[in-house]
Amino acid sequence: MYRNFRVVPNIIFGRGSFNQLADVIAPHRSQGSYFVFVLDDVFVGKSLEGRIPLVKDDLLLPVNVDDEPKTSYIDALVEQIRTSREGKPDGIVGIGGGSTMDIAKAVSLMLNNPGSSADYQGWDLINNPAVYHVAVPTLAGTGAEISRTTILTGPEKKLGINSDYTLYDQLLLDPELVADVPKNQWFYTGMDCYIHDVESLKGTFINEFSKAYGEKSIELCRQVFLEEHPDRDDKLMMASYFGGMSIAYSQVGACHALSYGLSYVLGIHHGIGCCMAFDVLDEIYPEGVREFRQMMARHDITLPKIAADLDDTALERMVTTALNLVPLWENCLGPDWKELMPRQRCKELYLEM
Amino acid sequence: MYRNFRVVPNIIFGRGSFNQLADVIAPHRSQGSYFVFVLDDVFVGKSLEGRIPLVKDDLLLPVNVDDEPKTSYIDALVEQIRTSREGKPDGIVGIGGGSTMDIAKAVSLMLNNPGSSADYQGWDLINNPAVYHVAVPTLAGTGAEISRTTILTGPEKKLGINSDYTLYDQLLLDPELVADVPKNQWFYTGMDCYIHDVESLKGTFINEFSKAYGEKSIELCRQVFLEEHPDRDDKLMMASYFGGMSIAYSQVGACHALSYGLSYVLGIHHGIGCCMAFDVLDEIYPEGVREFRQMMARHDITLPKIAADLDDTALERMVTTALNLVPLWENCLGPDWKELMPRQRCKELYLEM
Repeated sequence: MYRNFRVVPNIIFGRGSFNQLADVIAPHRSQGSYFVFVLDDVFVGKSLEGRIPLVKDDLLLPVNVDDEPKTSYIDALVEQIRTSREGKPDGIVGIGGGSTMDIAKAVSLMLNNPGSSADYQGWDLINNPAVYHVAVPTLAGTGAEISRTTILTGPEKKLGINSDYTLYDQLLLDPELVADVPKNQWFYTGMDCYIHDVESLKGTFINEFSKAYGEKSIELCRQVFLEEHPDRDDKLMMASYFGGMSIAYSQVGACHALSYGLSYVLGIHHGIGCCMAFDVLDEIYPEGVREFRQMMARHDITLPKIAADLDDTALERMVTTALNLVPLWENCLGPDWKELMPRQRCKELYLEM
Repeated sequence: MYRNFRVVPNIIFGRGSFNQLADVIAPHRSQGSYFVFVLDDVFVGKSLEGRIPLVKDDLLLPVNVDDEPKTSYIDALVEQIRTSREGKPDGIVGIGGGSTMDIAKAVSLMLNNPGSSADYQGWDLINNPAVYHVAVPTLAGTGAEISRTTILTGPEKKLGINSDYTLYDQLLLDPELVADVPKNQWFYTGMDCYIHDVESLKGTFINEFSKAYGEKSIELCRQVFLEEHPDRDDKLMMASYFGGMSIAYSQVGACHALSYGLSYVLGIHHGIGCCMAFDVLDEIYPEGVREFRQMMARHDITLPKIAADLDDTALERMVTTALNLVPLWENCLGPDWKELMPRQRCKELYLEM
């Protein structure tokens, strides 16, 4: 049985295409309603904020992503929209990196589904379609713009709301928007994509569909991180999109599983967490890790070390979090993954970080 | 201004996925209605026909594609559906090569739009959405499964019905279905894709989005036509899909323009017409034509010659048909294309074929 998967049905790509945002959403506006623009608060007071095509009752909703998105934060934002405007919005536009794009997805789902966002962490638990929602990424690499999940840290777990309804209705990919990102963040987020590709291509689930996307994505990552190209932002945006599409019939693997443990227990952001985890996975992804280190060297990246500060309780929780992600380990190590990755080996990997 | 383009929103890919067709369309069935299965009549009496998941009032509609689809044929098929069943169908499934997929697209549009299909040849002339329609390609290369057009030969011109509504709602890509295609047809249809890619990549309209798709598509074509791979059918299916996506922000060029003249005036099928035209385009696409000839040699392909039989009236009509395709020439030769491709040069190209 193959998955019948849904892709984002409308895409606009090009330098300066942000200027077309008003036109893109115009057909979705109705009399008396409004749009919500979910904006990473690093842009508050910056020129990008001034370019947002706000009209009349539209709501600008700055969000803080110093921490990765929590279910309680989503619930509070939904409440904030409900109390500040009458009726439901016509649409939600998420402008920012992976966390902001995930927040915008979750908010648009929760406006049409009762209860707390924590109730829907899992697979296909959402019953009602989301409010129309548009992704405008300002960072490239996470694949959040194209994925059917929104990763949230809940009271009990870090887990996505996985659903066809989570998927955006529209992408606006403007490579000019990623030009000003700080170097370290650019690198870590780009590596999220590179690692997606390695894990997808080296996984046991791979087929020709996911391979075509993954191979092109990794080639573009190499151009961006190991070569010089004037259009590197365009290339990284396409790499991110293709990397996300590659997961359609595949899965990520060991690195993403370990990185979830780092995020859930230590609050480490996903991109840097992936880098820290990948750097100890020589045995599983030898060529990938070798090339990743070339990329780090070329861009003068030094990863933080955490092992010295880890107590045993934290360590055990991280191991549990990582090993709970069964499909990731199955993709990575095959059906016998439990024998190949006992708790002790997983713990030792964390202790190398 | 960039195009906000629509892509087919649902895809299922995998060997044997044809067995899931009943499940894929099930959510679109309604009480008292029916599905129409548009089937290339070469499959009548073959095992594939027996695998079509017909229920109750469903209509099996074999179509003949010895000639490329005419607007009069579309109108007759729509009439046939209307007279043989009450009410509109829930959906249309096109099972076959590029011509059959184009017929299924056109029929699903014309069931919801008044008049003759010839009235809608052009860009964005369709007013009402099509009936839900599903593509099941049995040939790989045309990109018809992913394009927003259905190419029809009308009383006045060969031109597509270009519209977002033309696009399929669902793709089912089963590489097993292309295994039995006769070698020449496999080659000509595959070359349609290879030539798409060359024309897109060498064109003046190209951007990073179209380049990423086009480059991966051409790489897959090389694997299929210049190497040996056990999964070549999977690769060619992905090449066709990526080749179609590459056109999103690009265009085809000189070869497709010339091939339209061959089809319109002489009734030559699109795939073989593209090969005949490409073979005389050394000056415009030197590397592409060289590689194309390697592919022809490897697969023992000999192209028919037509120049000796051409009278001057036919020749003039072919030149007019080809040169009317302005965007193709603009993409290929830039804004000064009229000086670079006068009628005389175009005529000489036809006389080399």
